[in-house]
Amino acid sequence: MRALKKALPASCLITDGPGLRPYECDGLTAIREAPWLVALPETEAQVAAVLAVCREHGVSVVPRGAGTGLSGGARPHADGVVLGLSRMNRILEIDPANGIARVEPGVRNLAISEAAAEFGLYYAPDPSSQIACSIGGNVAENSGGVHCLKYGLTVHNVLGARVMLMNGEVLELGGPLYDTPGLDLLAVLCGSEGMLGLVLEVTVALLPKPPEVAVLLAAFADVGAAGQAVADIIGAGIIPAGMEMMDRLAVQAAEAFAKAGYPEDAAAILLIELDGSETELARQGAVVERLLSEGGAYQIDVARDADAQARLWKGRKSAFPAVGRIAPDYYCMDGTIPRHRLAEVLTEIDSLSEEYGLQVANVFHAGDGNLHPLILFDANKPGELERTEEMGGRILELCVAVGGTVTGEHGVGVEKLNQMCVQFNGAELSQFFRLKSAWDPDELLNPGKGIPTLTRCGELGGMHVRHGELPFPDLERF
Amino acid sequence: MRALKKALPASCLITDGPGLRPYECDGLTAIREAPWLVALPETEAQVAAVLAVCREHGVSVVPRGAGTGLSGGARPHADGVVLGLSRMNRILEIDPANGIARVEPGVRNLAISEAAAEFGLYYAPDPSSQIACSIGGNVAENSGGVHCLKYGLTVHNVLGARVMLMNGEVLELGGPLYDTPGLDLLAVLCGSEGMLGLVLEVTVALLPKPPEVAVLLAAFADVGAAGQAVADIIGAGIIPAGMEMMDRLAVQAAEAFAKAGYPEDAAAILLIELDGSETELARQGAVVERLLSEGGAYQIDVARDADAQARLWKGRKSAFPAVGRIAPDYYCMDGTIPRHRLAEVLTEIDSLSEEYGLQVANVFHAGDGNLHPLILFDANKPGELERTEEMGGRILELCVAVGGTVTGEHGVGVEKLNQMCVQFNGAELSQFFRLKSAWDPDELLNPGKGIPTLTRCGELGGMHVRHGELPFPDLERF
Repeated sequence: MRALKKALPASCLITDGPGLRPYECDGLTAIREAPWLVALPETEAQVAAVLAVCREHGVSVVPRGAGTGLSGGARPHADGVVLGLSRMNRILEIDPANGIARVEPGVRNLAISEAAAEFGLYYAPDPSSQIACSIGGNVAENSGGVHCLKYGLTVHNVLGARVMLMNGEVLELGGPLYDTPGLDLLAVLCGSEGMLGLVLEVTVALLPKPPEVAVLLAAFADVGAAGQAVADIIGAGIIPAGMEMMDRLAVQAAEAFAKAGYPEDAAAILLIELDGSETELARQGAVVERLLSEGGAYQIDVARDADAQARLWKGRKSAFPAVGRIAPDYYCMDGTIPRHRLAEVLTEIDSLSEEYGLQVANVFHAGDGNLHPLILFDANKPGELERTEEMGGRILELCVAVGGTVTGEHGVGVEKLNQMCVQFNGAELSQFFRLKSAWDPDELLNPGKGIPTLTRCGELGGMHVRHGELPFPDLERF
Repeated sequence: MRALKKALPASCLITDGPGLRPYECDGLTAIREAPWLVALPETEAQVAAVLAVCREHGVSVVPRGAGTGLSGGARPHADGVVLGLSRMNRILEIDPANGIARVEPGVRNLAISEAAAEFGLYYAPDPSSQIACSIGGNVAENSGGVHCLKYGLTVHNVLGARVMLMNGEVLELGGPLYDTPGLDLLAVLCGSEGMLGLVLEVTVALLPKPPEVAVLLAAFADVGAAGQAVADIIGAGIIPAGMEMMDRLAVQAAEAFAKAGYPEDAAAILLIELDGSETELARQGAVVERLLSEGGAYQIDVARDADAQARLWKGRKSAFPAVGRIAPDYYCMDGTIPRHRLAEVLTEIDSLSEEYGLQVANVFHAGDGNLHPLILFDANKPGELERTEEMGGRILELCVAVGGTVTGEHGVGVEKLNQMCVQFNGAELSQFFRLKSAWDPDELLNPGKGIPTLTRCGELGGMHVRHGELPFPDLERF
């Protein structure tokens, strides 16, 4: 600690008990532990100084952005340093001619769009935490959002990054141009959950704001029909800016909270955002309306003005807190499935819900098959948290069994280490490890996150599942 | 050799002199060497057998697709095996509902679109060699094409790959879903030039064919004005499906060869393809025409029917062979620059052309700043090939000096190893090496390609250039 106090101003270090409290967890609040120390460097030189001290003393480093991550990627270690980048929050450059912004890692996601607004531009990926989450954290988790169906994940919108390795070396990855030679280290960095390097600077693409926007709400009496409508729209060659689905419990909770005007009798609703020119919108809107009504929607509302659109979105955006009002606690899952397996997966989640005696509200990015089941529980009832976590694991394994994945946009962190044993075989996990070691041979950077050890997977038993091969007796019906 | 003859049927091995001739080089024909042996496995088991033998005897392996690469990535080693994947060429699955094709690596790029055509779908990346090049090679080189401005490079259109490492392990990378957990090994594989693994199977995204297409030809009396028009169109928020530029020498060569109806008096022409719905096309076409004529185009032709479009494209697509008719040899360069530096880079290429006494025809993907200067030379004149290569190197270093890169879509191979020393610093190159070692610790897979050794860079002198820092005395004017 003396070495760190020498390296950084006192204002950049938190070493006392109460000051450490906010750093005990990230958005995965069920798992808490105070770090040994929090460093909040304000310059690249200070980051280098912290890493040098930690290297010398073999102390592990957990990088942290805004702490909004949902899978525990920023969970601290009791004997380690949390290295928070929130104070490196300058917007270095907005270049409207080339549609580029260059920012420090602590800049909030929404702040980029705010700074670009005067040029009619914005940064597309919009995780629901966008008001608080930082771009450095977005890179670490390869964050998505409602609009990633059309505009891609973080990896598709980040053009370059300046990165410091644990050994203090600085790399410039990617750049403002379309292609770069050499191995695509930037893509590896996106979604690497702070295991490879510290992001010092990010260059992102800015897009022109779409000239016109329309939001459609469609209500269905049957969840399967809603799922089919999603497939039909994509199948017709239309990629909406966003296409969200909520089931009955989610709709009722959101409506009670946000008064968005949702039909509470619906088994499922779809919210579909279209954007483009006036003419394009008219054409796409007509096709989408026809497909929805042919697909069994019994109510279709179209919002063309900004207020009505904001009201429709408000229900969706407040769905998580709204669910929080109808149960003492909830656990937000994150998996993906092929769109055409939607109805059967929801049916199976229903049976799991019955089996475990736990209610589930389903809110998800239907367009890209990214499920967010919210399991309602009461942490004060003995054993209920454990039952919830077990059921959550079963849902993720269900996703893999139908050909999906254990994470859509929230990362692996510590939450989904076991499910990674289901998703990947030994050779694949070894390859992740080898790549991690190529960047951080001493395993000082965010150890224990993202990649399960083969020993851990071994202890879980032969959990590896591949499309079509189904070792789980309880999943053989898929 | 005995071990290989035991492992593979005789029909899958080429060991004699004349049979080896076609494998002496790829599309970079200036550099030739016969391999020790060519293996053409037909199954995954045979690939594994070849690798096992090579591992045991420490023999290097050069993977090869269709051999159309332009940077020497498939250049053989005299004491090594060329492992050609052209016979693994089955289309395994076309899944129109999910817009996916699963194919073996030897399938030709165009064959995918042909197989998908009955469903109204196609595979977007279209390198000019698409009739011959294979999808495995496209993955290795992260190939682009005329339409990658709007639809992305190979990495943006490949969803998954089955890969065999040099140690025989098989990995499934990515998958048909939008996001996958874990480190993004698929992105690293794309553009890794056969240095990391053998591609056994590729899953690609298929797109619906655009309902309507228009092609515009615009002629300019000034190259700078044409470059500015490109920037204006992108700046207006329009991303054409393709936007190509040719200078006077390229236009004249193409016109003499293909009779495309190009105005031979133009200093530069732009070819712009727009696609989308009828209404969208009308809107975009009007904006583009206005910007072109405001930008100084003295002639604008619009082709709406397929025949007229094919005629306009024919000149561009035959530009390389057309240039081949006006000079005994030509050397095709491949670099990228920021769009707004276009005019000054072309001026500088002109001075290099004078300095070296070598003519240059410029053909390039203007929309994404991907330059293809063709240097005309005569290999039979003593020293002219060497002068050409030196001038080519200077052009690539010029690209880096203005903030660009040394490769747009042709890869590094053996051709651009020196320029990689200019593009990257020691830490970055070391990181490439570490990643390579994580996949292939014994360096048996395509050694000597893609990444220069630090020794090589050291011998070249302090060549590293960064945006704004300009160690080259002769580039200080930028």
